[in-house]
Amino acid sequence: MTTSPVSVAIIGLGAVADAHIAAYLTLPEVKIVAVVDPRAERTRAIASKLGVPGFTDCASMLEQLHPVIGCVLSTVASHRPITEMLAAAGVHVLCEKPIANSVADALAMAHACARHPVEFMYGSSYRFLPAVSRARELIADGAIGKVRLVEERGVLGSGADNFTPMSSAHYPEGMPGGGGFGLVDHGVHLLDIFPWLINSPISRVLGRGNYTGGPMETEFAIAEHACGAIGMLTYDESSVSSDLPWEGVFSAGRNWKHGLGFAGDTGEWTPGASFLRVHGTQGALRIFHYANRLFLCLPGEVREIEVPAGAAPEHFGRQLRVFVQALKQGRPAPLGATVGVQALKALLAVYESAKSNSWTTVG
Amino acid sequence: MTTSPVSVAIIGLGAVADAHIAAYLTLPEVKIVAVVDPRAERTRAIASKLGVPGFTDCASMLEQLHPVIGCVLSTVASHRPITEMLAAAGVHVLCEKPIANSVADALAMAHACARHPVEFMYGSSYRFLPAVSRARELIADGAIGKVRLVEERGVLGSGADNFTPMSSAHYPEGMPGGGGFGLVDHGVHLLDIFPWLINSPISRVLGRGNYTGGPMETEFAIAEHACGAIGMLTYDESSVSSDLPWEGVFSAGRNWKHGLGFAGDTGEWTPGASFLRVHGTQGALRIFHYANRLFLCLPGEVREIEVPAGAAPEHFGRQLRVFVQALKQGRPAPLGATVGVQALKALLAVYESAKSNSWTTVG
Amino acid sequence: MTTSPVSVAIIGLGAVADAHIAAYLTLPEVKIVAVVDPRAERTRAIASKLGVPGFTDCASMLEQLHPVIGCVLSTVASHRPITEMLAAAGVHVLCEKPIANSVADALAMAHACARHPVEFMYGSSYRFLPAVSRARELIADGAIGKVRLVEERGVLGSGADNFTPMSSAHYPEGMPGGGGFGLVDHGVHLLDIFPWLINSPISRVLGRGNYTGGPMETEFAIAEHACGAIGMLTYDESSVSSDLPWEGVFSAGRNWKHGLGFAGDTGEWTPGASFLRVHGTQGALRIFHYANRLFLCLPGEVREIEVPAGAAPEHFGRQLRVFVQALKQGRPAPLGATVGVQALKALLAVYESAKSNSWTTVG
Amino acid sequence: MTTSPVSVAIIGLGAVADAHIAAYLTLPEVKIVAVVDPRAERTRAIASKLGVPGFTDCASMLEQLHPVIGCVLSTVASHRPITEMLAAAGVHVLCEKPIANSVADALAMAHACARHPVEFMYGSSYRFLPAVSRARELIADGAIGKVRLVEERGVLGSGADNFTPMSSAHYPEGMPGGGGFGLVDHGVHLLDIFPWLINSPISRVLGRGNYTGGPMETEFAIAEHACGAIGMLTYDESSVSSDLPWEGVFSAGRNWKHGLGFAGDTGEWTPGASFLRVHGTQGALRIFHYANRLFLCLPGEVREIEVPAGAAPEHFGRQLRVFVQALKQGRPAPLGATVGVQALKALLAVYESAKSNSWTTVG
Repeated sequence: MTTSPVSVAIIGLGAVADAHIAAYLTLPEVKIVAVVDPRAERTRAIASKLGVPGFTDCASMLEQLHPVIGCVLSTVASHRPITEMLAAAGVHVLCEKPIANSVADALAMAHACARHPVEFMYGSSYRFLPAVSRARELIADGAIGKVRLVEERGVLGSGADNFTPMSSAHYPEGMPGGGGFGLVDHGVHLLDIFPWLINSPISRVLGRGNYTGGPMETEFAIAEHACGAIGMLTYDESSVSSDLPWEGVFSAGRNWKHGLGFAGDTGEWTPGASFLRVHGTQGALRIFHYANRLFLCLPGEVREIEVPAGAAPEHFGRQLRVFVQALKQGRPAPLGATVGVQALKALLAVYESAKSNSWTTVG
Repeated sequence: MTTSPVSVAIIGLGAVADAHIAAYLTLPEVKIVAVVDPRAERTRAIASKLGVPGFTDCASMLEQLHPVIGCVLSTVASHRPITEMLAAAGVHVLCEKPIANSVADALAMAHACARHPVEFMYGSSYRFLPAVSRARELIADGAIGKVRLVEERGVLGSGADNFTPMSSAHYPEGMPGGGGFGLVDHGVHLLDIFPWLINSPISRVLGRGNYTGGPMETEFAIAEHACGAIGMLTYDESSVSSDLPWEGVFSAGRNWKHGLGFAGDTGEWTPGASFLRVHGTQGALRIFHYANRLFLCLPGEVREIEVPAGAAPEHFGRQLRVFVQALKQGRPAPLGATVGVQALKALLAVYESAKSNSWTTVG
Repeated sequence: MTTSPVSVAIIGLGAVADAHIAAYLTLPEVKIVAVVDPRAERTRAIASKLGVPGFTDCASMLEQLHPVIGCVLSTVASHRPITEMLAAAGVHVLCEKPIANSVADALAMAHACARHPVEFMYGSSYRFLPAVSRARELIADGAIGKVRLVEERGVLGSGADNFTPMSSAHYPEGMPGGGGFGLVDHGVHLLDIFPWLINSPISRVLGRGNYTGGPMETEFAIAEHACGAIGMLTYDESSVSSDLPWEGVFSAGRNWKHGLGFAGDTGEWTPGASFLRVHGTQGALRIFHYANRLFLCLPGEVREIEVPAGAAPEHFGRQLRVFVQALKQGRPAPLGATVGVQALKALLAVYESAKSNSWTTVG
Repeated sequence: MTTSPVSVAIIGLGAVADAHIAAYLTLPEVKIVAVVDPRAERTRAIASKLGVPGFTDCASMLEQLHPVIGCVLSTVASHRPITEMLAAAGVHVLCEKPIANSVADALAMAHACARHPVEFMYGSSYRFLPAVSRARELIADGAIGKVRLVEERGVLGSGADNFTPMSSAHYPEGMPGGGGFGLVDHGVHLLDIFPWLINSPISRVLGRGNYTGGPMETEFAIAEHACGAIGMLTYDESSVSSDLPWEGVFSAGRNWKHGLGFAGDTGEWTPGASFLRVHGTQGALRIFHYANRLFLCLPGEVREIEVPAGAAPEHFGRQLRVFVQALKQGRPAPLGATVGVQALKALLAVYESAKSNSWTTVG
């Protein structure tokens, strides 16, 4: 490969594509060369704004172009066929979470990429959020002692009447699904991130999640890690937040807002900003992952920890950059299909536990 | 019974006894007539302050006095023998939580009281906290729609090095035990209160708890209620709070502080004040149960709800008063042994679930 | 007088009248018998809602009715003629602040009432706000030591483009005037209240204020009290608040909102809630006068002080009640014209100081 | 001059010297060569830590050494004799605020430097605080419209019994003096900074301040700027803060604590952190000058503004660096004696106003 920019096709133009595109435009080492989405009007609009050709299906794009990387941001259900198509055309794949709706699909994707061969990079984007990666360093350095508990709690929304789950285009009818800030579409981030953050794999899980077309209920997952730490996820988008007005933070990034993507400006006061808590035997961390603020809590003392700039949505740029660098140097994708498969296995194990009424081992 | 004050003996003079005594002294309808505790010096001091006789064992007290009510605040392990002794002497019993260390003990206590007969009142004191009972009314009135999720989270302390669990005098070695703000000693309040608050019994539970003498770990319990709502309890006293400095509240009551009882003055700023969250399909409640502040969260709006005065520790007075009124009117204790047994069953079922690795039905 | 309700006519139906009427309707000892305002439509609407006759001028009302009290809430410029008319008809007067636009007018009003004679009560309504009167008790009890500094700061609004001052109907062109939360219309409350609150009269003042028709600028007044304490008032309605999102309070009353009167519900979170600060040699008070919350600050400790319920706008009811009680018992109005004259003198002395460029003694 | 480090002698080793020294040690372009203070023990300790000679008087130092710059941090009363001594020895002067206790002294200092000649730099250190200089840019860019009001309010402390004013070594008996966070010792910063911040000189002032040896009272100054804006300063160190517990900020710098200098660590939660407010016709700024956080308030919106790192006490390093650069390039000190004289004139005019009872023009 030369030092000329690496060509990237964006496949799937939902809200998250805006964030990816914004981040990629700031990178000298990549160049968006095509956009693809079945919704012709939106495709035309974005293609025109970027000055690149737009296509309503991936096959048509591949007939005319041969990008180095295909960035797969389309519906989850389409991840497998699109990845197979890209691989067959010799295009490397960067694929958004969740990797697929089933482990079988995910493995087929990995297989297709391995055969041709192209590199497959899993979009474990939270690893590229500065507050999260800084927190990981602090944990590794022993700043909070032995980790005991790591949590995310997302109980918000505007009540059941104002809630619409993700469509069956993403998560097929009767299969695990739910809202955009629910266990499947969002929690998969944390089932991926928790083991990495605290450096200990998930051994087994227990919980319950929603299904596309089913009743929407409170979702939760308990993840027991090999080190003994407990991960806890709680989500309910069809209830109302019980946060108080002063429980917010000035965001040093943009926050994801349902239907709007990463909305708002850096610097805005953000009530109900998402955060993770990590508790150890000597201290605790409060990680505002999108707002990019990080607090270290020690006995009798709370301290804000300086975090490098470049929060959401710039993390998508850093993610793509490490993929491009690996490609340039002939190294495998730093976060391969295995990472996505592991997160998916943990997620599906939660659903399995709800059927078996018992803890489910994550293989 | 006449209108003269009802005589009460206080058995057990730990920190909570200070609160009971302070509350009882304001009630014209009761009169403390004796205090009992094996620690002679403390007994002497309190007896002298109250101007009543002090005893180092219950039997000696019963030889000389015949109080109407024995208020059993002693170690949990002693609840059964003391209750049996009181019942045999024809003294009615008001017994602190947890009712006992085993269901067998609890049933024996109920049996002893039924046989003689005397009334047994379970100290379900949270029902007498104004913010909690006001919240219950709001829920019953439909203010937050159908309840989905009810939570308490107590992750605080000053790290593992500064934590001491309850002694084996309370919870025998190798049996369920742990800290004073842990699953057994504190969580039993919520396993009792949640069903009452949301008017739906617990069907099954899952979780894990600490054992006296064992390693102290994060404890949690998931309670599935008959109505489908999920109750979640999370405790870890040997970690450090991840709350931020402004996440506090001015208390309209006193807060329980480990080793100090209900400490501090009404009106104090209380960082890390304990609270419950109740989430429904139309709204949510934030209940600061000891601080006696209550907030109703509706979509786009949060409102403080006025709560009657008389928070902790005055609730102990209201609890005793309803017992006295029942006795005077010849009615059974409004909260009999069954209430305590039910809470204990739910608690022990959590421990059972950790052994069986599966949900445990609460009979 | 008998125990039948005292008849009250409401003269002037601006936003504050809604609050007075709401408060009066809860009082068994008074009965609204007429409403008067030149704006025929509004008069008709309110008269109809109350089931009383409405009039577009005071003279017409007095031709048909003889209320015991005339409650004068009309434009400031009309206070004198209406008071004179009521006095001539033998009707007692309760008059909103400021008493008049000039000391001459105010004295004429006092004179008219004295001659007929009827009682004149000045609407020093802040004295009836529970948080304010509780603060006064604390100060008198020495809770904060010797008072040094008492402040109100109202710098808010939505910028110069979105600001409209009070009309010349209230404050004639070229005369002291300005916004509804400015020095004249609002600050007159504090020039009245400060001496009462800290029990020391104002000796001299210095500052500057806006004029009707003139440019709107930052207004301020420094009041030197006989005891040496300094009172500071700062207002600017055509700027923007520099408060941060968490600098609010849950209101236990209703807050005055420009053009809306006492809007919002009790219990609402109120960012930018108005407050007074009183600083002494041993402590300080933070008085949210409309929100009815009170905080006592001592070295190293801040405590919320319990305040009786019945905040704004109920204070108008208490104000009327003390007037009615005085009338029934044949006592003079507890807050006579002198109180209003004194506040007006202090206010006009601020304007005088701006002309003379020096401190102005308040006679 | 060459590119070798510029030699600096530190004269005066009070608390602020620690901050200057810490900041200077990080600068490659300067080298501390001597420390001077009459307190022999402290001098010895610091000299030893820095590995430089220590002197108990300036004359002895100048006999042995010839530093390029003398950094004058000694008592205010000593600024003149030390400056004259340094100038006579051909040493450039960097002088802390206030420049002197009288305008005559200040002019004599300027004269001494001009005659020899050496450069005199006034330590207007607030200009080098990132949050302040960023605020100035925003104001110049019109972000808040036309400036109306600029304020600092410092009412804190632990009550009159726990307050000690600056000694007469700094401010002679019977002369303007008071506390370290009072009008003279601290307010002189703002009387210097306000005109620079809003780009408009002070025309006249009014207020009152404390005197060394006199009673300590609330101090205030009103500064009328040429543009019509009002500057307001209010200080009282012998009262108690009326701030509420959540009214703090996480500091991105260190805060000045009386007797301790710049204490605490970056990142600490700082209740009662000092701030300036600037209000304009279109918006407002909230400047936490030491905590290095900046907020822009627009109608209906508050935003945190990113500020370059390097808050207190690093600003002393930037201040010295610009002086060194000017010296190297043969330019005059960027902030000459005139700046210090102007601030002193404004300060003394406040005292004059208290005597004349009228506004005092600042020449």
